[in-house]
Amino acid sequence: MPDTAQEIRLASRPEGEPRPENFELAEAPMPGPGEGEVLVRNSYLSVDPYMRGRMRDVKSYIPPFQVGEVLDGGAVGRVVASNSDDLQEGDWVESMNGWREYYTAKGDSLRKIDPALGPVSTALGVLGMPGLTAYAGIHEIGKAREGETVLVSAAAGAVGSVAGQLARIAGCRVVGSAGSQEKVDYLTSELGFDAAFNYRDVDLSQALREHCPDRIDVCFENVGGDHLEAALGRMANFGRVALCGMISAYNLEEPPAGPRNIAALLVNRVTVRGFIVMDHYDMLPRFAQEVARHVKSGELRYRETVVEGIENMPEAFIGLLGGENIGKMLVKVGPDESGA
Amino acid sequence: MPDTAQEIRLASRPEGEPRPENFELAEAPMPGPGEGEVLVRNSYLSVDPYMRGRMRDVKSYIPPFQVGEVLDGGAVGRVVASNSDDLQEGDWVESMNGWREYYTAKGDSLRKIDPALGPVSTALGVLGMPGLTAYAGIHEIGKAREGETVLVSAAAGAVGSVAGQLARIAGCRVVGSAGSQEKVDYLTSELGFDAAFNYRDVDLSQALREHCPDRIDVCFENVGGDHLEAALGRMANFGRVALCGMISAYNLEEPPAGPRNIAALLVNRVTVRGFIVMDHYDMLPRFAQEVARHVKSGELRYRETVVEGIENMPEAFIGLLGGENIGKMLVKVGPDESGA
Repeated sequence: MPDTAQEIRLASRPEGEPRPENFELAEAPMPGPGEGEVLVRNSYLSVDPYMRGRMRDVKSYIPPFQVGEVLDGGAVGRVVASNSDDLQEGDWVESMNGWREYYTAKGDSLRKIDPALGPVSTALGVLGMPGLTAYAGIHEIGKAREGETVLVSAAAGAVGSVAGQLARIAGCRVVGSAGSQEKVDYLTSELGFDAAFNYRDVDLSQALREHCPDRIDVCFENVGGDHLEAALGRMANFGRVALCGMISAYNLEEPPAGPRNIAALLVNRVTVRGFIVMDHYDMLPRFAQEVARHVKSGELRYRETVVEGIENMPEAFIGLLGGENIGKMLVKVGPDESGA
Repeated sequence: MPDTAQEIRLASRPEGEPRPENFELAEAPMPGPGEGEVLVRNSYLSVDPYMRGRMRDVKSYIPPFQVGEVLDGGAVGRVVASNSDDLQEGDWVESMNGWREYYTAKGDSLRKIDPALGPVSTALGVLGMPGLTAYAGIHEIGKAREGETVLVSAAAGAVGSVAGQLARIAGCRVVGSAGSQEKVDYLTSELGFDAAFNYRDVDLSQALREHCPDRIDVCFENVGGDHLEAALGRMANFGRVALCGMISAYNLEEPPAGPRNIAALLVNRVTVRGFIVMDHYDMLPRFAQEVARHVKSGELRYRETVVEGIENMPEAFIGLLGGENIGKMLVKVGPDESGA
């Protein structure tokens, strides 16, 4: 066991796009587990778009990160020492104690992962929070029904790629928007999207007219800005917009121009509903069962973009906000002998 | 019976604010009722904000008005001759055959009014479409519950004044926004609103912070534009926005700037739902019973702004869009011996 463990701290609050100097790679003393605690060595750290919001000093649904402190993100790791009856050495766990190599925590505060369900890294992706976000958004918020048209933006990302496939499995016609030709190809040839387009290359309204001839019943929105405006203008009567993310705005210092076509919501009787995954943890058991089954059968596919080394974490996060990932973006910082 | 009947036609499509020359007062031959038809003399004609939208040549949930043709609006009148088994001479009826003195129609296409429920003019206001709009918006769309804070914009209007009172009756704290001190006084001293402000005189965000200290659970939105943006910024977690109208935009040739704080919908998990009263006619029986009872008991009050003479109809409509009315704006074009 080393004497120290590496962690990434917030060195300063980013203005606009985060830069490497906003982050600091630091050494902390190796923690020792107290009574009822376990010591965990992280293997995979999660980088998530929502973390950009927490880097601002504003109140939101979770408190902001503090300058000089470690960035709490999702992580999957393995118990290396246990003083807890809840977990044994060798158990895999998911936590919000990421962006560091080692941590201690009460045994009962961690979610134990069953490696038989799939590779442990998927607990941060298709079988974890991004997957549940997609599941809640498609089923509970969007209420996608067979035969409907579903538009997914940022469709090659960790959430969007699952959302689109769940809609396809539900019998919907699925249209994806993504930021490169490689992603567009991935959506149509690997994930079974009915259509996809590169939003950087097209007139959005025209692309939506072309690819959504019967308009849009459910819009799973991850992007916001112009993309949302174009989608609102193409919604079907009684359509639903599941407002999941607005990645186009996360690096902006001023809020972007709002959609000018709010009146279309009224005329078409559209429902727009903002949602956050943590309100939908009650769906977790049903989600885990259903989606693990689809993954095992091969009906639902996923991809991970894995960066090696905790020192590359800031770069991975910056890249994520720039759309450099396909599927879930992870940083591997420890061994993975889960063998799945 | 005269040989001719007056009617108001659309002379040209307005650009921006409608002007008198966009309307034409015309004489049409007095119609005679055919088989199964009745002849109705209108007493009250309804002017409604949504009619501005129909003056544009764009497809919407109802077809646009045609230049040179009479403007179909709501009306209350009395059967003066009947070839129909459904209606007798002397019956009061509501129809969409307004903006004219006389019309013929199939007897079974008209809604018969019971004058015992209240003055027949209320079939165009508190007991008619505006009342049902308020009822559906507060109960079905907004799902206002006891103890919640409800914000109503254009609160002294035909819809807003009923919406606010229904929320008050449901046990909500009700805050109204209106465009003059006279209206503000009306809301607080006559209609029992807990608070009200003149949106022309205040900083909207500050007024909402002041009057909605526990934020807004339900926003009944009639105005749009800056007003909607300010309201979105003050919504409570899991709040609902019932998007009923956007009167601030009806005279604009270009859509107004959209709300820049769409991200607030996500963070606060807000639902925005556009709605149109005609989707909620199933609520009519329950609405009519409940609201007529509240009106009779005096718990729910209404006011009408009545303009005399069909020739003043364009002016009444222009005035309506400028906020010159308190409560329902009507044009009286025939006798009312309903005596209620």
